[in-house]
Amino acid sequence: MDFHEKLKLKTEVVEDMIFSLLPRDDDALQRTILAAMDYSVRAGGKRLRPILIGEMCALFADGEGAFGTIRSGDADTMENVVPLHPALPYFLAAIECIHTYSLVHDDLPAMDNDMLRRGKPTTHAVYGEAMGILAGDALLNFAFELASAGCLRCAENGIGDGHSNDLETAVRAMAVLSKKAGVFGMVGGQVIDVEGEKAGLPMTNERLDTIYRLKTSALLEAAMMCGAILGGAAEPEIVTVERIARNVGLAFQIRDDILDVTGDEATVGKPIGSDEKNDKQTYVALNGLEKADEEVRRLTDEALRELSLLSGDTAFLTELILYLTKRQW
Amino acid sequence: MDFHEKLKLKTEVVEDMIFSLLPRDDDALQRTILAAMDYSVRAGGKRLRPILIGEMCALFADGEGAFGTIRSGDADTMENVVPLHPALPYFLAAIECIHTYSLVHDDLPAMDNDMLRRGKPTTHAVYGEAMGILAGDALLNFAFELASAGCLRCAENGIGDGHSNDLETAVRAMAVLSKKAGVFGMVGGQVIDVEGEKAGLPMTNERLDTIYRLKTSALLEAAMMCGAILGGAAEPEIVTVERIARNVGLAFQIRDDILDVTGDEATVGKPIGSDEKNDKQTYVALNGLEKADEEVRRLTDEALRELSLLSGDTAFLTELILYLTKRQW
Repeated sequence: MDFHEKLKLKTEVVEDMIFSLLPRDDDALQRTILAAMDYSVRAGGKRLRPILIGEMCALFADGEGAFGTIRSGDADTMENVVPLHPALPYFLAAIECIHTYSLVHDDLPAMDNDMLRRGKPTTHAVYGEAMGILAGDALLNFAFELASAGCLRCAENGIGDGHSNDLETAVRAMAVLSKKAGVFGMVGGQVIDVEGEKAGLPMTNERLDTIYRLKTSALLEAAMMCGAILGGAAEPEIVTVERIARNVGLAFQIRDDILDVTGDEATVGKPIGSDEKNDKQTYVALNGLEKADEEVRRLTDEALRELSLLSGDTAFLTELILYLTKRQW
Repeated sequence: MDFHEKLKLKTEVVEDMIFSLLPRDDDALQRTILAAMDYSVRAGGKRLRPILIGEMCALFADGEGAFGTIRSGDADTMENVVPLHPALPYFLAAIECIHTYSLVHDDLPAMDNDMLRRGKPTTHAVYGEAMGILAGDALLNFAFELASAGCLRCAENGIGDGHSNDLETAVRAMAVLSKKAGVFGMVGGQVIDVEGEKAGLPMTNERLDTIYRLKTSALLEAAMMCGAILGGAAEPEIVTVERIARNVGLAFQIRDDILDVTGDEATVGKPIGSDEKNDKQTYVALNGLEKADEEVRRLTDEALRELSLLSGDTAFLTELILYLTKRQW
């Protein structure tokens, strides 16, 4: 299997797990919001964060980077798919719910006021503004219902069955997830971005770096760190993983800025030149294309160098990082 | 000390704990949202849910209903105040953050569009709509940062120090908190309410009961159940506590409907007759004042009867429930 086949398979496995954990009840009086949550999560995306959790967990748990899971060839139940940590499926789904809620709220009229995302009507465009707010709230809350359920499952397993640390690692992962998603993580980045634009503050590289670290890197850091923690990584390894994720996030975001200038609209799947049109102060706007390209290369090299120092099979993760930072879409 | 003095003292103690756990960093680039979160939480309220967590925890942990805590007379540090469970202060603050976020989002222009709450400008009125959305998100997320921090603290304490069950009870409390706040709890109730009004659905007592159970009772159930769980209550006791909280919530909500008709504007602190003006289908609108009064009495009696069957000193809790369901404000 080449990289793209592997990625496709992993994406399907991860989506199966996420979809199977989404709340549903067609008879409930609140079925509209359940439908809105479901619509938002299924609307697509690369499922990058759940895949990263799985990869990092597998890397530390069994020394293989190929997401244990896939080798079995038996992808039809969560139970068979992820023997790595009892809470792993819950964390996969939780981080995708957090990522999705952030997009749903970003698209609201009072925020970016976007009616389309990935070619589909946004949640508030389909269900109305009030339901857009509530569906985002419900998804964020549900992420922590999932994470709690994962912890609870470890607690119920008890100790002494070969998983004595499961509850503790699950709780540590939950603490990282909640922190990186919050006001000193992703939400904080969104605020600094919105505020700066509103106030017409001059963008500096320092301010931009903070925004990118929080808006883009923080949730990737959460994904890779949660996976590492669940996989049993030691504290210094977790710090290394955090740094790798930060650099990947920054490279990914700057590549996004580059594509907004040089990309092909059909390949990228969204209008080109929108940053310039919206007077958006990006890395490219501040430093030019050449410097941006150099910076993506530098950040990617650094991430790959640190990744290579971790033990285990990092081949798939290496290809994934290269794919993300050189992407043409 | 009479009931009102005790309540005042407990409110102060609880507020000290909550405020001390709020995020702050005056130098952070995201200081505006930190200020908006702080403003929202400090804007007031009865702190009923945190007080209920503390009371229930104390009832089951040491058999005294008077929130262990207060007896010491030493309210200046969290450490001294709550020796009942290491995660207790975190859960007190978490539930107040959840309650606050729900008010901040309810007040948004796309929801109830309220510019004043408890006589003060609402969060979006002060900080703008985008910041209102983000501050709500940040508060909801922060609630789970707090709950996770509480769990983590138990994990760090290790086992075998007389608190061997602390981590497990903290995780169980977090699962209850997240579920009761979510789409099958508080958020679900809000959705059913908003949707019904929009669609002009005829209100029935059954539908109203579901809305009240989810919108009002669910978070009171979370508070009392989390307290009981942290205090070491057994499973059947937790089920009883859930039922007590549900009945208190329903009685509290119906009393609110009654006050909107019969209350004194100065005492109640908000305009009287707003339900009728907004064509709001309340219990009073559906069943009349007399039946509403009877129902409050029936629900309160049932709650107090079940409370009296629990062991320990329930005197303060009894007075609190009577106060809430007979309240004139």
